[in-house]
Amino acid sequence: MFLARVKGSIWSTRKEETLRGFKFLVVQPITVIYSEDDEAKIVEQGNTIVAADKIGAGETEIVMVTSGSSSRQGLDDKDIPLDALVVGIVDKETFESQY
Amino acid sequence: MFLARVKGSIWSTRKEETLRGFKFLVVQPITVIYSEDDEAKIVEQGNTIVAADKIGAGETEIVMVTSGSSSRQGLDDKDIPLDALVVGIVDKETFESQY
Amino acid sequence: MFLARVKGSIWSTRKEETLRGFKFLVVQPITVIYSEDDEAKIVEQGNTIVAADKIGAGETEIVMVTSGSSSRQGLDDKDIPLDALVVGIVDKETFESQY
Amino acid sequence: MFLARVKGSIWSTRKEETLRGFKFLVVQPITVIYSEDDEAKIVEQGNTIVAADKIGAGETEIVMVTSGSSSRQGLDDKDIPLDALVVGIVDKETFESQY
Amino acid sequence: MFLARVKGSIWSTRKEETLRGFKFLVVQPITVIYSEDDEAKIVEQGNTIVAADKIGAGETEIVMVTSGSSSRQGLDDKDIPLDALVVGIVDKETFESQY
Repeated sequence: MFLARVKGSIWSTRKEETLRGFKFLVVQPITVIYSEDDEAKIVEQGNTIVAADKIGAGETEIVMVTSGSSSRQGLDDKDIPLDALVVGIVDKETFESQY
Repeated sequence: MFLARVKGSIWSTRKEETLRGFKFLVVQPITVIYSEDDEAKIVEQGNTIVAADKIGAGETEIVMVTSGSSSRQGLDDKDIPLDALVVGIVDKETFESQY
Repeated sequence: MFLARVKGSIWSTRKEETLRGFKFLVVQPITVIYSEDDEAKIVEQGNTIVAADKIGAGETEIVMVTSGSSSRQGLDDKDIPLDALVVGIVDKETFESQY
Repeated sequence: MFLARVKGSIWSTRKEETLRGFKFLVVQPITVIYSEDDEAKIVEQGNTIVAADKIGAGETEIVMVTSGSSSRQGLDDKDIPLDALVVGIVDKETFESQY
Repeated sequence: MFLARVKGSIWSTRKEETLRGFKFLVVQPITVIYSEDDEAKIVEQGNTIVAADKIGAGETEIVMVTSGSSSRQGLDDKDIPLDALVVGIVDKETFESQY
Protein backbone atom coordinates (compact mmCIF):
# COMPACT_ATOMS: atom_id res chain seq x y z
CA MET A 1 0.00 0.00 0.00
CA PHE A 2 1.16 3.54 -0.47
CA LEU A 3 0.56 6.48 1.85
CA ALA A 4 -1.05 9.66 0.55
CA ARG A 5 -2.61 12.89 1.74
CA VAL A 6 -6.19 13.64 0.68
CA LYS A 7 -6.23 16.82 -1.41
CA GLY A 8 -9.67 17.08 -3.01
CA SER A 9 -12.41 15.31 -4.94
CA ILE A 10 -13.26 14.56 -8.57
CA TRP A 11 -16.68 14.95 -10.15
CA SER A 12 -17.41 12.86 -13.21
CA THR A 13 -20.93 12.84 -14.66
CA ARG A 14 -20.11 10.75 -17.72
CA LYS A 15 -18.53 7.59 -16.40
CA GLU A 16 -18.71 3.80 -16.34
CA GLU A 17 -22.13 2.79 -15.00
CA THR A 18 -20.57 0.45 -12.45
CA LEU A 19 -18.60 3.32 -10.88
CA ARG A 20 -21.73 5.28 -9.87
CA GLY A 21 -22.13 5.78 -6.12
CA PHE A 22 -18.41 5.93 -5.32
CA LYS A 23 -16.66 8.99 -3.95
CA PHE A 24 -13.42 9.70 -5.82
CA LEU A 25 -10.62 11.45 -3.95
CA VAL A 26 -7.54 13.11 -5.39
CA VAL A 27 -4.67 11.94 -3.19
CA GLN A 28 -1.03 13.02 -3.19
CA PRO A 29 1.42 10.16 -2.49
CA ILE A 30 3.89 10.83 0.33
CA THR A 31 7.14 9.30 1.42
CA VAL A 32 8.20 9.16 5.07
CA ILE A 33 11.75 10.11 6.01
CA TYR A 34 12.89 9.01 9.45
CA SER A 35 15.64 10.98 11.16
CA GLU A 36 18.07 9.42 13.62
CA ASP A 37 15.95 10.41 16.63
CA ASP A 38 13.12 8.47 14.96
CA GLU A 39 11.03 11.51 14.14
CA ALA A 40 9.16 11.07 10.87
CA LYS A 41 9.12 13.78 8.22
CA ILE A 42 6.43 13.61 5.56
CA VAL A 43 7.32 14.61 2.00
CA GLU A 44 4.81 14.80 -0.87
CA GLN A 45 6.26 13.02 -3.91
CA GLY A 46 4.96 11.57 -7.19
CA ASN A 47 1.86 12.14 -9.31
CA THR A 48 -1.56 12.59 -7.71
CA ILE A 49 -3.84 9.55 -7.98
CA VAL A 50 -7.63 9.16 -7.91
CA ALA A 51 -8.78 6.61 -5.32
CA ALA A 52 -12.30 5.46 -4.44
CA ASP A 53 -13.25 5.99 -0.80
CA LYS A 54 -15.84 4.09 1.26
CA ILE A 55 -14.41 4.96 4.71
CA GLY A 56 -15.01 8.69 4.68
CA ALA A 57 -11.53 10.22 4.63
CA GLY A 58 -11.42 14.01 4.84
CA GLU A 59 -9.15 16.59 3.27
CA THR A 60 -5.62 16.79 4.77
CA GLU A 61 -5.94 13.33 6.33
CA ILE A 62 -3.30 10.72 5.54
CA VAL A 63 -4.61 7.49 4.06
CA MET A 64 -3.39 4.04 3.06
CA VAL A 65 -4.23 3.22 -0.57
CA THR A 66 -4.31 -0.24 -2.15
CA SER A 67 -3.63 -0.40 -5.92
CA GLY A 68 -4.30 -2.77 -8.77
CA SER A 69 -6.52 -5.84 -8.74
CA SER A 70 -6.10 -6.05 -4.95
CA SER A 71 -8.12 -2.86 -4.55
CA ARG A 72 -11.19 -4.64 -5.93
CA GLN A 73 -11.06 -7.20 -3.12
CA GLY A 74 -12.42 -4.46 -0.87
CA LEU A 75 -15.63 -4.06 -2.92
CA ASP A 76 -19.00 -5.75 -2.74
CA ASP A 77 -18.93 -6.13 -6.52
CA LYS A 78 -15.37 -7.13 -7.52
CA ASP A 79 -15.99 -6.97 -11.26
CA ILE A 80 -15.75 -3.22 -11.80
CA PRO A 81 -12.93 -1.20 -13.43
CA LEU A 82 -11.39 0.31 -10.31
CA ASP A 83 -7.67 0.16 -9.47
CA ALA A 84 -7.18 2.30 -6.33
CA LEU A 85 -9.08 2.19 -3.01
CA VAL A 86 -8.61 3.98 0.31
CA VAL A 87 -8.32 1.08 2.80
CA GLY A 88 -7.40 2.97 5.97
CA ILE A 89 -7.04 6.40 7.55
CA VAL A 90 -3.73 6.73 9.39
CA ASP A 91 -4.08 7.70 13.07
CA LYS A 92 -2.75 11.15 13.87
CA GLU A 93 -0.50 9.60 16.56
CA THR A 94 1.54 7.77 13.91
CA PHE A 95 3.20 10.91 12.58
CA GLU A 96 2.52 13.31 15.43
CA SER A 97 4.00 16.64 14.56
CA GLN A 98 3.87 16.05 10.85
CA TYR A 99 0.29 14.84 10.33
CA MET B 1 -6.94 5.60 -11.39
CA PHE B 2 -4.74 8.25 -12.90
CA LEU B 3 -5.86 11.52 -14.45
CA ALA B 4 -4.85 12.43 -18.00
CA ARG B 5 -5.60 14.88 -20.76
CA VAL B 6 -6.72 13.48 -24.12
CA LYS B 7 -4.19 14.45 -26.78
CA GLY B 8 -5.00 12.45 -29.91
CA SER B 9 -5.78 9.03 -31.34
CA ILE B 10 -3.88 6.01 -32.62
CA TRP B 11 -4.64 4.09 -35.80
CA SER B 12 -3.51 0.49 -35.96
CA THR B 13 -4.54 -1.67 -38.91
CA ARG B 14 -2.47 -4.71 -37.97
CA LYS B 15 -3.54 -5.58 -34.43
CA GLU B 16 -4.91 -8.33 -32.19
CA GLU B 17 -8.27 -9.44 -33.62
CA THR B 18 -9.95 -8.99 -30.24
CA LEU B 19 -9.00 -5.31 -30.14
CA ARG B 20 -10.99 -4.43 -33.28
CA GLY B 21 -13.80 -1.95 -32.72
CA PHE B 22 -12.12 -0.01 -29.91
CA LYS B 23 -11.09 3.62 -30.16
CA PHE B 24 -7.55 4.15 -28.86
CA LEU B 25 -6.71 7.53 -27.35
CA VAL B 26 -3.26 8.95 -26.63
CA VAL B 27 -3.54 10.46 -23.17
CA GLN B 28 -1.02 12.56 -21.24
CA PRO B 29 -0.98 11.82 -17.47
CA ILE B 30 -1.35 14.88 -15.26
CA THR B 31 -0.70 15.62 -11.62
CA VAL B 32 -2.79 18.11 -9.65
CA ILE B 33 -1.04 20.63 -7.42
CA TYR B 34 -3.25 22.35 -4.83
CA SER B 35 -2.21 25.75 -3.57
CA GLU B 36 -3.07 27.01 -0.08
CA ASP B 37 -6.23 28.77 -1.30
CA ASP B 38 -7.33 25.37 -2.65
CA GLU B 39 -7.01 26.30 -6.28
CA ALA B 40 -5.87 23.35 -8.37
CA LYS B 41 -3.05 23.64 -10.90
CA ILE B 42 -2.76 20.93 -13.54
CA VAL B 43 0.70 19.81 -14.63
CA GLU B 44 1.36 17.30 -17.43
CA GLN B 45 3.89 14.72 -16.24
CA GLY B 46 5.03 11.25 -17.28
CA ASN B 47 4.94 9.24 -20.51
CA THR B 48 1.85 9.31 -22.74
CA ILE B 49 -0.30 6.17 -22.56
CA VAL B 50 -2.74 4.57 -25.00
CA ALA B 51 -6.16 3.92 -23.43
CA ALA B 52 -9.27 2.38 -24.97
CA ASP B 53 -12.34 4.62 -24.86
CA LYS B 54 -16.01 3.58 -24.90
CA ILE B 55 -17.40 6.79 -23.34
CA GLY B 56 -16.53 9.23 -26.12
CA ALA B 57 -13.92 11.53 -24.60
CA GLY B 58 -12.80 14.39 -26.80
CA GLU B 59 -9.46 16.08 -27.28
CA THR B 60 -8.38 18.39 -24.41
CA GLU B 61 -10.84 16.76 -22.00
CA ILE B 62 -9.51 15.38 -18.71
CA VAL B 63 -10.25 11.72 -18.10
CA MET B 64 -9.91 9.10 -15.38
CA VAL B 65 -8.01 6.02 -16.59
CA THR B 66 -8.00 2.58 -14.97
CA SER B 67 -4.89 0.43 -15.56
CA GLY B 68 -3.96 -3.22 -15.44
CA SER B 69 -6.29 -6.18 -15.10
CA SER B 70 -8.90 -3.91 -13.48
CA SER B 71 -9.38 -2.11 -16.80
CA ARG B 72 -10.77 -5.33 -18.33
CA GLN B 73 -13.58 -5.38 -15.76
CA GLY B 74 -15.17 -2.57 -17.76
CA LEU B 75 -15.45 -4.68 -20.93
CA ASP B 76 -18.15 -7.00 -22.24
CA ASP B 77 -15.43 -9.52 -23.11
CA LYS B 78 -12.89 -9.56 -20.27
CA ASP B 79 -10.47 -11.93 -21.96
CA ILE B 80 -8.72 -9.50 -24.30
CA PRO B 81 -5.18 -8.04 -24.05
CA LEU B 82 -6.07 -4.52 -22.91
CA ASP B 83 -4.53 -2.78 -19.90
CA ALA B 84 -5.85 0.83 -19.91
CA LEU B 85 -9.44 2.06 -20.17
CA VAL B 86 -11.02 5.52 -19.93
CA VAL B 87 -13.61 5.07 -17.14
CA GLY B 88 -14.77 8.66 -16.67
CA ILE B 89 -14.63 12.19 -18.07
CA VAL B 90 -13.90 14.73 -15.34
CA ASP B 91 -16.48 17.52 -15.06
CA LYS B 92 -15.17 20.92 -16.01
CA GLU B 93 -16.29 22.25 -12.61
CA THR B 94 -13.71 20.10 -10.81
CA PHE B 95 -10.74 22.11 -12.01
CA GLU B 96 -12.45 25.32 -13.09
CA SER B 97 -9.86 27.69 -14.37
CA GLN B 98 -7.39 24.99 -15.27
CA TYR B 99 -9.54 22.51 -17.24
CA MET C 1 -0.94 0.20 -23.35
CA PHE C 2 2.36 1.95 -23.90
CA LEU C 3 3.88 2.94 -27.23
CA ALA C 4 7.37 1.81 -28.17
CA ARG C 5 9.74 1.60 -31.09
CA VAL C 6 11.09 -1.82 -32.07
CA LYS C 7 14.87 -1.83 -31.68
CA GLY C 8 16.04 -5.43 -31.96
CA SER C 9 15.53 -9.02 -30.84
CA ILE C 10 16.64 -11.24 -27.97
CA TRP C 11 17.90 -14.80 -28.30
CA SER C 12 17.54 -17.06 -25.31
CA THR C 13 18.39 -20.74 -25.61
CA ARG C 14 17.95 -21.60 -21.93
CA LYS C 15 14.44 -20.49 -21.06
CA GLU C 16 11.09 -21.56 -19.63
CA GLU C 17 9.77 -24.42 -21.78
CA THR C 18 6.42 -22.66 -22.23
CA LEU C 19 8.11 -19.64 -23.82
CA ARG C 20 9.52 -21.63 -26.77
CA GLY C 21 8.24 -20.53 -30.16
CA PHE C 22 7.79 -16.86 -29.29
CA LYS C 23 9.75 -14.05 -30.89
CA PHE C 24 11.07 -11.61 -28.30
CA LEU C 25 11.57 -8.00 -29.33
CA VAL C 26 13.55 -5.32 -27.51
CA VAL C 27 11.33 -2.24 -27.59
CA GLN C 28 12.09 1.31 -26.50
CA PRO C 29 9.11 3.08 -24.85
CA ILE C 30 8.24 6.47 -26.35
CA THR C 31 6.20 9.42 -25.22
CA VAL C 32 4.30 11.63 -27.67
CA ILE C 33 4.52 15.40 -27.30
CA TYR C 34 1.85 17.38 -29.16
CA SER C 35 2.66 20.94 -30.17
CA GLU C 36 -0.03 23.64 -30.49
CA ASP C 37 -0.45 23.01 -34.23
CA ASP C 38 -1.22 19.39 -33.29
CA GLU C 39 1.96 17.96 -34.76
CA ALA C 40 3.20 15.02 -32.75
CA LYS C 41 6.83 14.70 -31.69
CA ILE C 42 8.09 11.28 -30.62
CA VAL C 43 10.60 11.07 -27.77
CA GLU C 44 12.24 7.84 -26.60
CA GLN C 45 12.03 7.64 -22.80
CA GLY C 46 12.37 4.96 -20.13
CA ASN C 47 14.05 1.55 -19.95
CA THR C 48 13.86 -0.86 -22.88
CA ILE C 49 11.43 -3.77 -22.40
CA VAL C 50 11.26 -7.25 -23.91
CA ALA C 51 7.85 -8.00 -25.47
CA ALA C 52 6.63 -11.14 -27.21
CA ASP C 53 5.42 -10.59 -30.78
CA LYS C 54 2.93 -12.66 -32.78
CA ILE C 55 1.99 -9.94 -35.29
CA GLY C 56 5.33 -9.57 -37.06
CA ALA C 57 6.52 -6.08 -36.15
CA GLY C 58 9.74 -4.97 -37.81
CA GLU C 59 12.62 -2.86 -36.62
CA THR C 60 11.91 0.92 -36.41
CA GLU C 61 8.13 0.31 -36.40
CA ILE C 62 6.07 1.80 -33.58
CA VAL C 63 4.00 -0.70 -31.63
CA MET C 64 1.36 -0.79 -28.91
CA VAL C 65 2.39 -3.03 -25.99
CA THR C 66 0.10 -4.51 -23.33
CA SER C 67 1.70 -5.27 -19.95
CA GLY C 68 1.00 -7.46 -16.96
CA SER C 69 -1.61 -10.19 -16.69
CA SER C 70 -3.62 -8.53 -19.48
CA SER C 71 -0.89 -9.44 -21.96
CA ARG C 72 -1.64 -13.13 -21.43
CA GLN C 73 -5.21 -12.65 -22.61
CA GLY C 74 -3.78 -12.43 -26.12
CA LEU C 75 -2.30 -15.93 -25.99
CA ASP C 76 -3.70 -19.34 -26.88
CA ASP C 77 -2.26 -20.70 -23.64
CA LYS C 78 -2.84 -18.08 -20.91
CA ASP C 79 -0.92 -19.92 -18.22
CA ILE C 80 2.63 -18.98 -19.20
CA PRO C 81 5.02 -16.52 -17.50
CA LEU C 82 4.81 -13.66 -19.97
CA ASP C 83 4.07 -10.02 -19.02
CA ALA C 84 4.46 -7.95 -22.23
CA LEU C 85 2.89 -8.53 -25.65
CA VAL C 86 2.88 -6.50 -28.88
CA VAL C 87 -0.85 -6.07 -29.59
CA GLY C 88 -0.74 -3.64 -32.51
CA ILE C 89 1.51 -1.93 -35.04
CA VAL C 90 0.76 1.80 -35.26
CA ASP C 91 -0.12 3.03 -38.76
CA LYS C 92 2.47 5.35 -40.25
CA GLU C 93 -0.27 7.95 -40.82
CA THR C 94 -0.73 8.42 -37.08
CA PHE C 95 2.58 10.21 -36.60
CA GLU C 96 3.36 11.23 -40.16
CA SER C 97 6.65 13.05 -40.17
CA GLN C 98 7.90 11.45 -36.99
CA TYR C 99 7.26 7.73 -37.60
CA MET D 1 10.27 -8.84 -4.93
CA PHE D 2 11.91 -5.64 -3.80
CA LEU D 3 14.27 -5.20 -0.86
CA ALA D 4 13.52 -2.66 1.84
CA ARG D 5 14.59 -1.60 5.31
CA VAL D 6 11.95 -1.57 8.06
CA LYS D 7 11.57 1.99 9.36
CA GLY D 8 8.47 2.07 11.53
CA SER D 9 4.81 1.13 11.88
CA ILE D 10 1.44 2.59 10.93
CA TRP D 11 -1.60 2.75 13.18
CA SER D 12 -4.98 2.94 11.51
CA THR D 13 -8.13 2.70 13.62
CA ARG D 14 -10.59 3.39 10.81
CA LYS D 15 -9.82 0.81 8.15
CA GLU D 16 -11.25 -1.98 6.01
CA GLU D 17 -12.70 -4.62 8.33
CA THR D 18 -10.77 -7.38 6.56
CA LEU D 19 -7.45 -5.69 7.34
CA ARG D 20 -7.89 -5.93 11.13
CA GLY D 21 -5.26 -8.03 12.87
CA PHE D 22 -2.42 -7.24 10.51
CA LYS D 23 0.71 -5.34 11.49
CA PHE D 24 1.57 -2.63 8.97
CA LEU D 25 5.22 -1.66 8.55
CA VAL D 26 6.61 1.42 6.84
CA VAL D 27 9.48 0.14 4.71
CA GLN D 28 12.05 2.09 2.70
CA PRO D 29 13.00 0.40 -0.60
CA ILE D 30 16.72 -0.09 -1.15
CA THR D 31 18.90 -0.82 -4.13
CA VAL D 32 22.10 -2.85 -3.86
CA ILE D 33 25.24 -1.60 -5.60
CA TYR D 34 28.00 -4.18 -6.03
CA SER D 35 31.56 -2.94 -6.33
CA GLU D 36 34.23 -4.81 -8.28
CA ASP D 37 35.48 -6.65 -5.20
CA ASP D 38 31.90 -7.91 -4.80
CA GLU D 39 31.14 -5.91 -1.69
CA ALA D 40 27.53 -4.78 -1.60
CA LYS D 41 26.56 -1.21 -0.76
CA ILE D 42 22.97 -0.55 0.28
CA VAL D 43 21.33 2.68 -0.87
CA GLU D 44 17.84 3.79 0.20
CA GLN D 45 15.89 4.88 -2.88
CA GLY D 46 12.25 5.48 -3.79
CA ASN D 47 9.06 6.23 -1.84
CA THR D 48 8.34 4.42 1.44
CA ILE D 49 5.70 1.70 1.18
CA VAL D 50 3.34 0.14 3.74
CA ALA D 51 3.60 -3.66 3.84
CA ALA D 52 1.71 -6.14 6.01
CA ASP D 53 3.94 -8.36 8.14
CA LYS D 54 3.18 -11.83 9.55
CA ILE D 55 6.82 -12.89 10.07
CA GLY D 56 7.79 -10.41 12.77
CA ALA D 57 10.37 -8.18 11.13
CA GLY D 58 11.96 -5.59 13.41
CA GLU D 59 13.11 -2.04 12.81
CA THR D 60 16.37 -1.69 10.81
CA GLU D 61 16.04 -5.26 9.43
CA ILE D 62 16.14 -5.75 5.66
CA VAL D 63 13.12 -7.54 4.22
CA MET D 64 11.89 -8.98 0.93
CA VAL D 65 8.50 -7.56 -0.07
CA THR D 66 6.08 -9.05 -2.61
CA SER D 67 3.73 -6.60 -4.36
CA GLY D 68 0.42 -6.71 -6.17
CA SER D 69 -1.97 -9.63 -6.39
CA SER D 70 0.92 -12.02 -5.67
CA SER D 71 1.14 -10.66 -2.14
CA ARG D 72 -2.32 -12.04 -1.37
CA GLN D 73 -1.14 -15.58 -2.15
CA GLY D 74 0.64 -15.48 1.19
CA LEU D 75 -2.60 -14.95 3.16
CA ASP D 76 -5.12 -17.35 4.68
CA ASP D 77 -7.91 -15.23 3.20
CA LYS D 78 -6.86 -14.17 -0.31
CA ASP D 79 -9.84 -11.91 -0.90
CA ILE D 80 -8.74 -8.83 1.00
CA PRO D 81 -7.51 -5.47 -0.34
CA LEU D 82 -3.81 -5.84 0.39
CA ASP D 83 -1.02 -5.28 -2.16
CA ALA D 84 2.28 -5.57 -0.24
CA LEU D 85 3.48 -8.33 2.10
CA VAL D 86 6.79 -8.98 3.87
CA VAL D 87 7.70 -12.50 2.68
CA GLY D 88 11.21 -12.84 4.11
CA ILE D 89 13.79 -11.28 6.41
CA VAL D 90 17.21 -11.12 4.77
CA ASP D 91 19.98 -12.84 6.74
CA LYS D 92 22.58 -10.46 8.10
CA GLU D 93 25.29 -12.51 6.37
CA THR D 94 23.97 -11.51 2.93
CA PHE D 95 25.13 -7.91 3.21
CA GLU D 96 27.63 -8.21 6.04
CA SER D 97 29.08 -4.82 6.69
CA GLN D 98 26.13 -2.95 5.29
CA TYR D 99 23.19 -4.64 7.02
CA MET E 1 9.73 -8.72 -19.36
CA PHE E 2 12.65 -6.63 -18.28
CA LEU E 3 16.32 -7.39 -18.83
CA ALA E 4 18.73 -7.51 -15.91
CA ARG E 5 22.23 -8.59 -14.99
CA VAL E 6 22.65 -11.12 -12.18
CA LYS E 7 24.63 -9.53 -9.36
CA GLY E 8 24.37 -11.84 -6.35
CA SER E 9 22.08 -13.90 -4.12
CA ILE E 10 19.91 -13.37 -1.06
CA TRP E 11 19.75 -15.63 1.98
CA SER E 12 16.62 -15.55 4.05
CA THR E 13 16.16 -18.05 6.87
CA ARG E 14 12.92 -16.60 8.22
CA LYS E 15 10.55 -16.52 5.27
CA GLU E 16 7.15 -17.64 3.99
CA GLU E 17 7.01 -21.44 4.15
CA THR E 18 5.90 -21.67 0.52
CA LEU E 19 9.07 -19.86 -0.65
CA ARG E 20 11.43 -22.55 0.70
CA GLY E 21 13.50 -24.28 -1.98
CA PHE E 22 13.79 -21.33 -4.31
CA LYS E 23 17.04 -19.58 -5.14
CA PHE E 24 16.70 -15.80 -4.91
CA LEU E 25 18.93 -13.68 -7.14
CA VAL E 26 19.65 -9.96 -6.83
CA VAL E 27 19.38 -8.62 -10.37
CA GLN E 28 20.18 -5.16 -11.69
CA PRO E 29 17.76 -3.98 -14.44
CA ILE E 30 19.43 -2.79 -17.62
CA THR E 31 18.32 -0.73 -20.59
CA VAL E 32 19.71 -1.32 -24.09
CA ILE E 33 20.77 1.67 -26.17
CA TYR E 34 21.19 1.00 -29.89
CA SER E 35 23.54 3.22 -31.84
CA GLU E 36 23.06 3.98 -35.53
CA ASP E 37 25.36 1.15 -36.62
CA ASP E 38 23.06 -1.15 -34.63
CA GLU E 39 25.55 -1.91 -31.91
CA ALA E 40 23.87 -2.34 -28.56
CA LYS E 41 25.17 -0.65 -25.43
CA ILE E 42 24.02 -1.98 -22.07
CA VAL E 43 23.36 0.50 -19.27
CA GLU E 44 22.44 -0.51 -15.69
CA GLN E 45 19.48 1.56 -14.55
CA GLY E 46 16.84 1.39 -11.81
CA ASN E 47 16.61 -0.33 -8.41
CA THR E 48 17.88 -3.89 -7.96
CA ILE E 49 15.14 -6.53 -7.74
CA VAL E 50 15.01 -9.98 -6.15
CA ALA E 51 13.87 -12.68 -8.61
CA ALA E 52 13.40 -16.40 -8.07
CA ASP E 53 15.49 -18.61 -10.38
CA LYS E 54 14.79 -22.18 -11.49
CA ILE E 55 16.98 -22.11 -14.63
CA GLY E 56 20.36 -21.71 -13.01
CA ALA E 57 21.54 -18.24 -14.06
CA GLY E 58 25.05 -17.31 -12.95
CA GLU E 59 26.58 -14.06 -11.84
CA THR E 60 27.22 -11.51 -14.64
CA GLU E 61 24.75 -13.28 -16.97
CA ILE E 62 21.93 -11.26 -18.51
CA VAL E 63 18.45 -12.60 -17.83
CA MET E 64 14.84 -11.96 -18.82
CA VAL E 65 12.60 -11.42 -15.79
CA THR E 66 8.80 -11.68 -15.69
CA SER E 67 7.02 -9.60 -13.02
CA GLY E 68 3.69 -9.62 -11.24
CA SER E 69 1.06 -12.32 -11.31
CA SER E 70 2.45 -13.55 -14.65
CA SER E 71 5.61 -14.72 -12.89
CA ARG E 72 3.59 -17.29 -10.95
CA GLN E 73 2.48 -18.95 -14.19
CA GLY E 74 5.98 -20.39 -14.39
CA LEU E 75 5.63 -22.29 -11.11
CA ASP E 76 4.36 -25.75 -10.24
CA ASP E 77 2.38 -24.22 -7.38
CA LYS E 78 0.89 -20.94 -8.59
CA ASP E 79 -0.53 -19.92 -5.21
CA ILE E 80 2.61 -18.58 -3.56
CA PRO E 81 3.58 -14.94 -2.85
CA LEU E 82 6.20 -14.48 -5.56
CA ASP E 83 6.23 -11.58 -8.06
CA ALA E 84 9.47 -11.90 -10.07
CA LEU E 85 10.88 -14.95 -11.90
CA VAL E 86 13.90 -15.46 -14.17
CA VAL E 87 12.32 -16.92 -17.33
CA GLY E 88 15.33 -16.92 -19.67
CA ILE E 89 19.08 -16.42 -19.91
CA VAL E 90 20.00 -14.18 -22.83
CA ASP E 91 22.45 -15.73 -25.30
CA LYS E 92 25.85 -14.06 -25.35
CA GLU E 93 25.46 -13.55 -29.13
CA THR E 94 22.59 -11.11 -28.60
CA PHE E 95 24.77 -8.35 -27.19
CA GLU E 96 28.18 -9.51 -28.36
CA SER E 97 30.76 -7.04 -27.17
CA GLN E 98 28.64 -5.79 -24.30
CA TYR E 99 27.53 -9.02 -22.61
